[in-house]
Amino acid sequence: MSVEPRPTTKTRRNPGSQSALRQLNQQRIVETLLGTGPLTQAEISRQTGLSTATVSNIVKIMSDDGLVSTTPTTSSGRRAVSVRLNSEGAVAVGIDVGRTHVRVIIASLDYRIIAERAVPLPLGHLAIEGVEAAARLLNELLEESGLQHSAVVGAGVGIPGPIDSRTGTVIQGAILPEWVGINILELLESALEVPVYIDNDANLGALAQVTWGPHSTISDLIFVKIGSGIGAGLILGGSPHYGHYGVTGEIGHATIFEQGMICRCGNRGCLETVASTAIMIELLSRGAPEPITTEDIVRLAFERDPATLRVIDDAGQAVGRAMANVANLLNPEVIVVGGPLAELGELLLDPIRRGLIRHAVPSVGESTQIVMSSLGNRAEALGGATLVFQQQGIHSAL
Amino acid sequence: MSVEPRPTTKTRRNPGSQSALRQLNQQRIVETLLGTGPLTQAEISRQTGLSTATVSNIVKIMSDDGLVSTTPTTSSGRRAVSVRLNSEGAVAVGIDVGRTHVRVIIASLDYRIIAERAVPLPLGHLAIEGVEAAARLLNELLEESGLQHSAVVGAGVGIPGPIDSRTGTVIQGAILPEWVGINILELLESALEVPVYIDNDANLGALAQVTWGPHSTISDLIFVKIGSGIGAGLILGGSPHYGHYGVTGEIGHATIFEQGMICRCGNRGCLETVASTAIMIELLSRGAPEPITTEDIVRLAFERDPATLRVIDDAGQAVGRAMANVANLLNPEVIVVGGPLAELGELLLDPIRRGLIRHAVPSVGESTQIVMSSLGNRAEALGGATLVFQQQGIHSAL
Repeated sequence: MSVEPRPTTKTRRNPGSQSALRQLNQQRIVETLLGTGPLTQAEISRQTGLSTATVSNIVKIMSDDGLVSTTPTTSSGRRAVSVRLNSEGAVAVGIDVGRTHVRVIIASLDYRIIAERAVPLPLGHLAIEGVEAAARLLNELLEESGLQHSAVVGAGVGIPGPIDSRTGTVIQGAILPEWVGINILELLESALEVPVYIDNDANLGALAQVTWGPHSTISDLIFVKIGSGIGAGLILGGSPHYGHYGVTGEIGHATIFEQGMICRCGNRGCLETVASTAIMIELLSRGAPEPITTEDIVRLAFERDPATLRVIDDAGQAVGRAMANVANLLNPEVIVVGGPLAELGELLLDPIRRGLIRHAVPSVGESTQIVMSSLGNRAEALGGATLVFQQQGIHSAL
Repeated sequence: MSVEPRPTTKTRRNPGSQSALRQLNQQRIVETLLGTGPLTQAEISRQTGLSTATVSNIVKIMSDDGLVSTTPTTSSGRRAVSVRLNSEGAVAVGIDVGRTHVRVIIASLDYRIIAERAVPLPLGHLAIEGVEAAARLLNELLEESGLQHSAVVGAGVGIPGPIDSRTGTVIQGAILPEWVGINILELLESALEVPVYIDNDANLGALAQVTWGPHSTISDLIFVKIGSGIGAGLILGGSPHYGHYGVTGEIGHATIFEQGMICRCGNRGCLETVASTAIMIELLSRGAPEPITTEDIVRLAFERDPATLRVIDDAGQAVGRAMANVANLLNPEVIVVGGPLAELGELLLDPIRRGLIRHAVPSVGESTQIVMSSLGNRAEALGGATLVFQQQGIHSAL
């Protein structure tokens, strides 16, 4: 059955390619300047091991892009060039598009929020309406902050659904059915007039945890967003994980009950059919005078309504069981739970933890921390800003 | 609920540290020499963007370590130093320890097998017996190949069980209960007298697929080993995934039947209780005059024995269901199935594929390739040799 092993040509990462090399070298220079403050080109060369010619070329390109300023100076009596990062000369935009809102954040290179605003959108809005609202909001915020449009190096946009990176479209199974099949990237780039990077909202939530959140030292983190759908964003080995074509973290479709309810994905008994806010609302609205909302679930739980507590307990244990499979597979250090139920705190964490410990390999169940997200409803937009920095090679992976 | 986001200090990867930088620079130099053949130091400097001083320092260290040879030459009429990789001056050893065998492979820097041999071990052997057998085998192979012991840059050893990287010990749940809790790294280093890197056998199987196997261009690959236990090795974003402390790929303990059989991990209805070779042997030995073996399962399946085919079909579908969860989460391009049942080919792949498609998100189920491993029973040892190259920074991640 075995064939003769053969040597591999290592073409995938193409480490010798000039553009990959330049990006890597630019990352080194940015990291060095972030760590130390302004340096001369000669000092950058010494601290990075790069040749002075390489440093000089890359500083020229970064200066043309507005990422750094250069000023003549002297060093040991010689003429030199001092290089400084432009913290507000170049800003990134993070945008979070939800079912009923859009949020825009403007962030500086050194991870400060310059401006932020959210506006409501009607349920079932068309993709173009969401995009136009985001563009209006961005222009308002730029004007109010006294920033030029040209200062925006790019926008990172979170979409609540799986995005097929081969086509740039939201694929079926998204929480926004009106957005499915539309080339959202083209739509956004023409409305925002900046380079746009799109990603799934849970991925951006994960990215925010390790850049803006309290988990900056964590290499392996799972961000679980429990909402109308359930999805996860993965930080693995220090970097976001996108897989073959970007459809990752679809834990909402883990089979929990082999013969359970039919799911919108076409399977049966998926986690979403037992633990999404949509099913919780459906279960708790039965017999109620009018349909309840997610906010009602939070309120009723704190009022210790028995049916609400039971529904949360069952949902939490099912999420915990799905998390056990994830933890057995990936051995994360931390699992962060986000979404509109994060306010429940221990009321939701406790059953998730029980489900995790019951179904995980003992050593993994005991050592995996589970916490609620502390970034609230701005996590996805903050992750969007980080995405811009990373995609442009301004910061290295993490 | 939300706190003010704060800037992050990027300490984790510590890109500025001198040793990390030197390793990165050494990788660039090795990759460049592998791609082009011998070069002068000045040529290396031009092709990598590194300063001539940096190149000269690293070449000196690599020369002292026996990884490269340097010879004086002239270039454009000037004196220069030509640098050449030593393909047999430095070799890596891959060792695979199984329940009933140990295999040793000696491999060169350019991925050629120089020598290879396996010997049987008694079932239930002590860890020290396996280690001593490996050391004897290594010395025999070195002598027969005319290699000095000093040419061995390190040994990568695959162990069939989860290894806690915090303690360097095999943790409970291993297929070799006699090895649990022993500091296998110390034992191996003192017997082999070379730097040793240990890893789970499924991880090394995955590494072999993307370095020695036909999947060198694949960034996201899952290697599933079906044997007495069931485990997976993960190549994610082009690198092996180890998680927080090394216990990854424990898919054998995904819950398949909530109220199923008790598993050796302490849970119920785990994948291993329905799809391992151990349970298949138990099921098929009932009523047989004497217990059957894994080889009997393969033979009976090709003879189209109905009970055997049914047991394989049920096991395959359960593996497929577990793979659906993995694929939904990680979106791999390829899943490779290995272990002693790989010879079954389509008889096992077909039910796995059905289970995958039945339980995965449609787009993921349709696009994930599932194939049998073509590296046979040498996959783990080959992966061990790759591990040495990677851990020593001789080759970059992939």
